[in-house]
Amino acid sequence: MIPGYFWLIPIAAVFVLYMAMRFFDAMKCEPAGTDRMVEIATHVRNGALAYLKQQYKVVGMVFILVAIFLALLAHKFHLQNEWVPFAFITAGICSGLAGFIGMQTATQASSRAAFAASQSLNNGLRVAFRSGAVVGLSVVGLALLDYSFWFLVLNHFEDIFPVNDRMVFITETMLTFAMGASLQALFARVGGGIFTKAADVGADLVGKIEEGIPEDDPRNPATIADNVGDNVGDVAGMGADLYESFYGAILASSALGASAFVSSDSDLQMKAILAPLLIGAAGAVLSVLGIFIVKTKENASSLELLRSLGWGIKCSGFCILLAALLIFYLLDIPDMLWPLWGAVAIGLIAGEIIGKSSEYYTSQAYLPTRHVASQAKTGSATVIIGGIGVGMLSTALPVLAVVIGTLLAFFLTQGRDKDIIMGLYGVSIAAVGMLSTLGITMATDAYGPIADNAGGNAEMSGLGEEVRKRTDALDALGNTTAATGKGFAIGSAALTTLALLASYMSAIKGSMLNVGRRSVILDGNNILVESLTLNDIINYFQIHLLNPKVLMGLFIGAMLSFVFCGLLVNAVGRAASCMVEEVRRQFREILGIRENKAIPDYAQCVKISTSSAQREMLVPSLVAVLSPILVGVTLGVAGVVGLLGGALSSGFVLAIFMANSGGAWDNAKKYIEEGAMGGKGSDAHKAAVIGDTVGDPFKDTAGPSLNILIKLMAMVSLVVVGITVSYS
Amino acid sequence: MIPGYFWLIPIAAVFVLYMAMRFFDAMKCEPAGTDRMVEIATHVRNGALAYLKQQYKVVGMVFILVAIFLALLAHKFHLQNEWVPFAFITAGICSGLAGFIGMQTATQASSRAAFAASQSLNNGLRVAFRSGAVVGLSVVGLALLDYSFWFLVLNHFEDIFPVNDRMVFITETMLTFAMGASLQALFARVGGGIFTKAADVGADLVGKIEEGIPEDDPRNPATIADNVGDNVGDVAGMGADLYESFYGAILASSALGASAFVSSDSDLQMKAILAPLLIGAAGAVLSVLGIFIVKTKENASSLELLRSLGWGIKCSGFCILLAALLIFYLLDIPDMLWPLWGAVAIGLIAGEIIGKSSEYYTSQAYLPTRHVASQAKTGSATVIIGGIGVGMLSTALPVLAVVIGTLLAFFLTQGRDKDIIMGLYGVSIAAVGMLSTLGITMATDAYGPIADNAGGNAEMSGLGEEVRKRTDALDALGNTTAATGKGFAIGSAALTTLALLASYMSAIKGSMLNVGRRSVILDGNNILVESLTLNDIINYFQIHLLNPKVLMGLFIGAMLSFVFCGLLVNAVGRAASCMVEEVRRQFREILGIRENKAIPDYAQCVKISTSSAQREMLVPSLVAVLSPILVGVTLGVAGVVGLLGGALSSGFVLAIFMANSGGAWDNAKKYIEEGAMGGKGSDAHKAAVIGDTVGDPFKDTAGPSLNILIKLMAMVSLVVVGITVSYS
Repeated sequence: MIPGYFWLIPIAAVFVLYMAMRFFDAMKCEPAGTDRMVEIATHVRNGALAYLKQQYKVVGMVFILVAIFLALLAHKFHLQNEWVPFAFITAGICSGLAGFIGMQTATQASSRAAFAASQSLNNGLRVAFRSGAVVGLSVVGLALLDYSFWFLVLNHFEDIFPVNDRMVFITETMLTFAMGASLQALFARVGGGIFTKAADVGADLVGKIEEGIPEDDPRNPATIADNVGDNVGDVAGMGADLYESFYGAILASSALGASAFVSSDSDLQMKAILAPLLIGAAGAVLSVLGIFIVKTKENASSLELLRSLGWGIKCSGFCILLAALLIFYLLDIPDMLWPLWGAVAIGLIAGEIIGKSSEYYTSQAYLPTRHVASQAKTGSATVIIGGIGVGMLSTALPVLAVVIGTLLAFFLTQGRDKDIIMGLYGVSIAAVGMLSTLGITMATDAYGPIADNAGGNAEMSGLGEEVRKRTDALDALGNTTAATGKGFAIGSAALTTLALLASYMSAIKGSMLNVGRRSVILDGNNILVESLTLNDIINYFQIHLLNPKVLMGLFIGAMLSFVFCGLLVNAVGRAASCMVEEVRRQFREILGIRENKAIPDYAQCVKISTSSAQREMLVPSLVAVLSPILVGVTLGVAGVVGLLGGALSSGFVLAIFMANSGGAWDNAKKYIEEGAMGGKGSDAHKAAVIGDTVGDPFKDTAGPSLNILIKLMAMVSLVVVGITVSYS
Repeated sequence: MIPGYFWLIPIAAVFVLYMAMRFFDAMKCEPAGTDRMVEIATHVRNGALAYLKQQYKVVGMVFILVAIFLALLAHKFHLQNEWVPFAFITAGICSGLAGFIGMQTATQASSRAAFAASQSLNNGLRVAFRSGAVVGLSVVGLALLDYSFWFLVLNHFEDIFPVNDRMVFITETMLTFAMGASLQALFARVGGGIFTKAADVGADLVGKIEEGIPEDDPRNPATIADNVGDNVGDVAGMGADLYESFYGAILASSALGASAFVSSDSDLQMKAILAPLLIGAAGAVLSVLGIFIVKTKENASSLELLRSLGWGIKCSGFCILLAALLIFYLLDIPDMLWPLWGAVAIGLIAGEIIGKSSEYYTSQAYLPTRHVASQAKTGSATVIIGGIGVGMLSTALPVLAVVIGTLLAFFLTQGRDKDIIMGLYGVSIAAVGMLSTLGITMATDAYGPIADNAGGNAEMSGLGEEVRKRTDALDALGNTTAATGKGFAIGSAALTTLALLASYMSAIKGSMLNVGRRSVILDGNNILVESLTLNDIINYFQIHLLNPKVLMGLFIGAMLSFVFCGLLVNAVGRAASCMVEEVRRQFREILGIRENKAIPDYAQCVKISTSSAQREMLVPSLVAVLSPILVGVTLGVAGVVGLLGGALSSGFVLAIFMANSGGAWDNAKKYIEEGAMGGKGSDAHKAAVIGDTVGDPFKDTAGPSLNILIKLMAMVSLVVVGITVSYS
């Protein structure tokens, strides 16, 4: 029976989507700028749409193949029911839709934001930020809507699920849906990341270093591709990524709620299942409030701009804490009011710490990035060494925040029975808490590339110095919010994956029954599978750290994080080399580009980035999808758990390292451009540009893709648990 | 009762040390070269001795403090007996002695090898390689001698150990001795690594890039410091490192042998304890044979040189396999002849694969390094990106070799009872097998810096082009053998740490008794600690991967690997900056250096490297020593096991990545210098020099220090297990 309060979730989803539409319409009503501005924006939009079309074609084929595979799997291993392939596809479509909406918004917004910035800084901020809000709100709205839809469908056909533990089966089935979102996100992040960095690195290497022309100069043939890249990588990619984070977190939390309260009455279990959804819905609605709060005055420093965005997020966070208290009070789960509320608070605080830590390590307002900048005085080698050192050290704080947060949430909620699943439910609630401000944090994140594109548009349309200065201020801020957003995405990915690990273990029992194992021998006793406890399963599969299968899984997981990054970094290197050759060719062959007398062939550069991205994204994706299956078949459950543990721990740390090194290099360059260490054109500046170029694939391709890798591996493991169990 | 065959071990040790002395004397009998050559060699030797003196002063104080701490610990927690502090110190002294002998040899050998190379390539190879052999043989000889000494002492005072499980206690006590070797090794690697790279980076950045003078030019003030660095980092540091690997592997294997056969009769148990020692002793003796085999003809290509060294190692390996078969046949452990022999073979093969993989990824004869070199055409940013990509991908093969080797060794030896400890004993035997060729592999490794120094000496003494070409050939080969040696050190570290993890778990029972726990409640039953099985302990402390303490330990372990590297990389960056400033100052203030009319102040550069190394080595060492204690006190046994698992898996992969990226950059530069991509002086060459400079702290400071970090953390955990258990 679906309780009345369930309907709050779709209602919130519709409201949030409606607000997104309002913001979109408002943005469209802004003046689109001069003819030249519109022309450039059209170039960028067409490039982006062409890329997305190609991307969705490839991804669509992959999705059809996987759906067929899932259908066969459902038939053979009985774990999944027949809905899974369809749900897999709807999650993929929703995730793609979130990316598409983001892209539509961002490409329409750039010239408008540039034009607004030509009037005042506050206008520029408002247009760029509210356009970012369209992306943020669409993401959370679509996720809540997709969840509601499938929850209703599966509950309607409830008779296909066993009467015992029905809700456990339904929520675990739904959990596998998130694989669609994960796969879409991986393609979006990897493809978009390769596209954008091939263009960016190519444009920078020839344009800035060899030809000595400024960023976003229309004479640079790769400049349109670079701007397209900001949209497809940083908006569409990030939209799909965070859709997946949010969706994954609420699904995992629901599934753990169902397991944790499986022996309670069904009302109580339903409350535990829907609690994370209600928190998510409240967060979505309250994000709208925060978005209205953000504004700034003319001549605001970047610190004031940052404070203004931070203020919006803080207000939302505070309101969400109050709302969560109300929700848990009304749900009235015995003894759990304060523990669950505490978990939400812990998630919010841990998210804030991770964000602040990223800000500290990557903003030129603080010591680490200034240190990297000062290393530029002795050349590019020391800049690179310095950035790597800073990135590696920057992993300490986020890891400690996640560690302490997880342990607190776990021990707060596990109760007197020391119930592991209950504790992990608390951890997953903390993940939902961390992501509850997603509507607004993602707005601050998506705002970055919009501001960046606005700057590009202003430069290419030859708007005045004043305008460019304003868009630069907005853009610099965007760099910091992007680093914060990435820290936040990876932090929530870690918590969500922990929850998925627990779901994996609790899905094992069902799939043992499905593959026809009725009893097992444990400690010499023959025990019915039905009556196995979680501890029994842990013992039976020996998922302890002295089991060499677990240990070897750890090694493989750690190795795969590095290999995955290596593949992506190499892909960017290769794609960038193609781009460099093409840009050099155009400068050589199309006479008059340098003197602004001939128009470069922008479309060719877009084409190169597109085809590189499509070609290069398949191998890393295969690694992510196939490794849990292969490890499962060879090393069984113990190996898979080790694999996930290794990928999670190494991948998490590696992702933070890469994101923060990249951010520090980027802003060290910006710091020098602002006049430090000799300023623009000095040797230090040249060295810093090299650092920034190295950082590009770190922070925009490999780093953010890693958190999807981690979750996708967990999702795939969960979906193929039937195969793994039958080979264990 | 000590069996008769035990005496083979000290006899082998004495024989090997005697041979080392013979090689040393033979080297001393070679002509020391011209006056100028002797003068330069004396500069380098004095610098190295001054550094070692300072280093041993600091390390000595740390050792005294730790010994006092251990004495207090032994008193309070009763785990260790009163011998531990003394044994801790002898292991430290032996390890330091191995480093000292290596240094003495290397500094005496450089001018002699240069002079020999002026006669013929084969002469140069012989002198350099046999000097390297002094280092290799001293290391294994001293380790076997130290083991024999303490084995005799502890067996003599056997009445202080409980009658039950006496040999388990003795071997576990001895295992803690290896902490002395680990700590010495950490200081040697970290201090030496910072020294050498500060000097190298400083010399390269100003000398090659700013002033445009060649490597090892006597006009460069940092050139003597650079040559000193090769000795203190690559010889003394590596000697201490591999002493610790070898010592740790045989101790861990002995301890596991004692545990695995604890319920057998004492003769059988003794055989299992001494088997790894016998393998090690046979390997040491047979390495001498391999050393005599290595020779080459004039005009040999670097591939032929490599093949010549490889041939020596292969012969030794093959003979060791035969010897191992004989040993296990004579020991006659029931049902274990083939499994244990198989484990030795697996270790040797896995070591070979890891070595080959390092060679493939870092030698300019193969595609990956050539790819990095070709990336130099588009500038230093793409070289860096390419090297990072190659390094990350290069982690796959070594990890798979370790994973497959471990699983094979484990399942081969665990027997029908599926005894975890027996299986892990097999893994530790594989580690001993991998390290059994250490005498000769280390000779090929230590030979590198000797050849490098010989080249430096030849350059500075103005020997002819021909000689320089020969020493360059020897040096290039040294780069590849160094990368191979590093892969090998980290591979064996991984296997040894797995064994230490098992020793850790089996030491828990003893320390529970020691801290006064007589019984525990497990699954509702009250069980006497004495009768706990390993599985009971695993269950009691919940060291499975769903326990958040284990998971959080994993995160912390992964994070610490990165933070440790970050500290080292930053330390090198800081120290190199000081060096750059000093070298620039000297070029500015001492008139006539450029024109060869004034002698630079070499000593000042040595002093800067020394004081930087001493200052910077303390914090990373503290991280390694304190983290297991802090995690133990806060998260208990489960947290410590997670910590070790995380540090082991991430650290292993990270170390391979760093070593191979660094090696690929180094040889990409060499490849360009040989004429590819435009050759010396081209833009591609400049870009490759930057790559090489970034790689220096990767491959010579952070990478090799990581494998000591991993083992030291395991050792410290084992020593303080009493504290951890009493807080669990």
